[in-house]
Amino acid sequence: MEKKSWVTVAGGVTAAQGFRAHGMACGVKKKGGPDLALVVSDQPAHAAAVFTTNKVAAAPVVVSREHVADGRARAVILNSGNANACLGQEGLKAARLMAEQTGKALTVSATDVLVASTGVIGAAFPVEKIINAIPTLVEGLVSEGGKAAARAIMTTDTVAKEIALEMTIAGRPVRIGGMAKGSGMIQPNMATMLAVVTTDLAIPAGLLRQAVAAATRASFNRITVDGDTSTNDSLFVLANGASAAEVTEPGAAYDLFQAALTHVCEELAKMIVRDGEGATKLVTIKVTGAIDEDQAEQAGRAVANSNLVKTAFFGEDANWGRILAAVGYSGIDFAPEQTRIFLGDLPVFAGGTGLAFDEGQAAKILAEPEIIVSIDLGQGAAEATLWTCDLSYDYVKINGSYRT
Amino acid sequence: MEKKSWVTVAGGVTAAQGFRAHGMACGVKKKGGPDLALVVSDQPAHAAAVFTTNKVAAAPVVVSREHVADGRARAVILNSGNANACLGQEGLKAARLMAEQTGKALTVSATDVLVASTGVIGAAFPVEKIINAIPTLVEGLVSEGGKAAARAIMTTDTVAKEIALEMTIAGRPVRIGGMAKGSGMIQPNMATMLAVVTTDLAIPAGLLRQAVAAATRASFNRITVDGDTSTNDSLFVLANGASAAEVTEPGAAYDLFQAALTHVCEELAKMIVRDGEGATKLVTIKVTGAIDEDQAEQAGRAVANSNLVKTAFFGEDANWGRILAAVGYSGIDFAPEQTRIFLGDLPVFAGGTGLAFDEGQAAKILAEPEIIVSIDLGQGAAEATLWTCDLSYDYVKINGSYRT
Repeated sequence: MEKKSWVTVAGGVTAAQGFRAHGMACGVKKKGGPDLALVVSDQPAHAAAVFTTNKVAAAPVVVSREHVADGRARAVILNSGNANACLGQEGLKAARLMAEQTGKALTVSATDVLVASTGVIGAAFPVEKIINAIPTLVEGLVSEGGKAAARAIMTTDTVAKEIALEMTIAGRPVRIGGMAKGSGMIQPNMATMLAVVTTDLAIPAGLLRQAVAAATRASFNRITVDGDTSTNDSLFVLANGASAAEVTEPGAAYDLFQAALTHVCEELAKMIVRDGEGATKLVTIKVTGAIDEDQAEQAGRAVANSNLVKTAFFGEDANWGRILAAVGYSGIDFAPEQTRIFLGDLPVFAGGTGLAFDEGQAAKILAEPEIIVSIDLGQGAAEATLWTCDLSYDYVKINGSYRT
Repeated sequence: MEKKSWVTVAGGVTAAQGFRAHGMACGVKKKGGPDLALVVSDQPAHAAAVFTTNKVAAAPVVVSREHVADGRARAVILNSGNANACLGQEGLKAARLMAEQTGKALTVSATDVLVASTGVIGAAFPVEKIINAIPTLVEGLVSEGGKAAARAIMTTDTVAKEIALEMTIAGRPVRIGGMAKGSGMIQPNMATMLAVVTTDLAIPAGLLRQAVAAATRASFNRITVDGDTSTNDSLFVLANGASAAEVTEPGAAYDLFQAALTHVCEELAKMIVRDGEGATKLVTIKVTGAIDEDQAEQAGRAVANSNLVKTAFFGEDANWGRILAAVGYSGIDFAPEQTRIFLGDLPVFAGGTGLAFDEGQAAKILAEPEIIVSIDLGQGAAEATLWTCDLSYDYVKINGSYRT
């Protein structure tokens, strides 16, 4: 088996060979600022995608689902400032028009263009602003455009989110890079987010789909900011083969690619949580000793979504009772007497009762910007890790007046 | 069928004949204030109870479940300031001791005493303070003691919660009265809360259980403050027959009692939400046009629990997109195109798209302390109503530093 190792490189979504991107302001955001991004592969690419499970899927989700069904894509156009959601036929027309006009400007088929939107739901979608900007957007495409694209998809995000890795497959350097945006409505299946990941590996569409599903399960589907699942969640992965390295079947090379893709997705996912609306802390919930992975995930999700747990972390309060109570209502079968809870390395609950612990040491652990909570159910060998953030005044402030 | 009508009377949990109560400070609350309550029936009573579904049930829940199993009870002792939860065998011993000592002081069997605790989880439970206070507590029992008892079970509640009704059954005046406390960790099955309801109707234990289950479903199980289900939720209903009116089987008299009991529970439930931690508004979510009541409830619960919806109400923002999105991820099958959403009487969404509405009128509706959101799924005739509150800065403040 090839060693699962890689190095971090610059370039984000354009780090891989044969990808160009651009980001610009086109006027969708009322307050101004970059709000339109395009990522393009210079050659045909295989593509896989994961979309929101919300029954109210936004128009771009409907259109992209159709366009990615054949496992091929050339470009992804994304706007921020307006979600193009809940607008009926008008919204669908607008999303289709975005794909058509982008395809025309790139001289590729409209069905090879994927579309994503993020922002306010239900407000009239100013598609003409986007259409008018497409020629400039295409003109601006450069192989160093990753950062500009990452900036243009931000909504309440405070930082642009990107990462890229390089590894060796079949003796050749292969890169995977990506960008993402959060930052409210973050709850798995999918986490509410947009993300585009590119690689210059050659990989068949079916195998790519399999890798993307596994990577998503362990990353974007394990994060939560507020338990709300948006109408627009989309992850797009494009593989264009420009590295000339190819993976055609399961095996060591596939495993390396899978691990690297998972790492890229996990890092982007953690960036989203760290930058969650109003978040001051990244909290990792690690559930071990479960009967199976699903139960571990179910218990971890209840803890990660608990407002009482999240406000306790904001208050730097070692309130393990709320953690245990959340596991208690998660729906899994477990015995509190067999359960152990740790804050960082500090054991706080075991044998069915709270442990005497050094409040000073707990305060020190809780004051850190990253906190690890470990919950050992003492039942089996399965585990799952979830990432959440604390719930702060600023979450309320940001979300109390988003639309207006 | 007897007319389903009643009048409101004073007296709360001691409004019904043959009940006495008292509330006092015994030192469990570190900051002082009333923290111990007792409700007693002067004659044997039938009893029914509903408890938390949390797998981590607090010690008093374990003990009360045993004691109410025979459908009989004489007294309920309740303390605030400490939940007696997650304390292992010590906690169980303490809860049993509370029942024993109360039984001794009242010269009734310990198994006829029900026990409830509310407050911080996992902190050492100062049972000796309670035991020492029991003689004084029993001495203070009076038939006007409802208010004192209601005060003594408050934690972060800002007002005592009580209500009582009088109706006529079999030509005699019959009363139902109750008290409750919230006010965080409020989520159905059970809503996190303690409540004691008393009536002087004579009714067999089995029929009482049936009435309590139906009343709970439409009241305490339809409220939510933060989606967290506590370890201590308990509702106790005692029926002592002191009115000499009796209901022994289903029929008009039972229906009247059932409706009145539901009304008492619904009013107490709404008081809990209105006084939810940091709440500034009571929001009623009415889902109609559903295929069945379960689906209506499921959709309504997703909306009622959405942090994004709740912060929007705090911000008085007519963000119907978040309401629709919450229905979208609730898991029910529905068509956005057939769905209509109203804020108060104002239609804001229909035909798959947002409607043009008067922002001034919306602002006026949203500025009220009580807001009704109606969601018509357009699928069938079933409906369900849920009650929630907004999510404010104060929720974060209260819960960020509860334990310390």
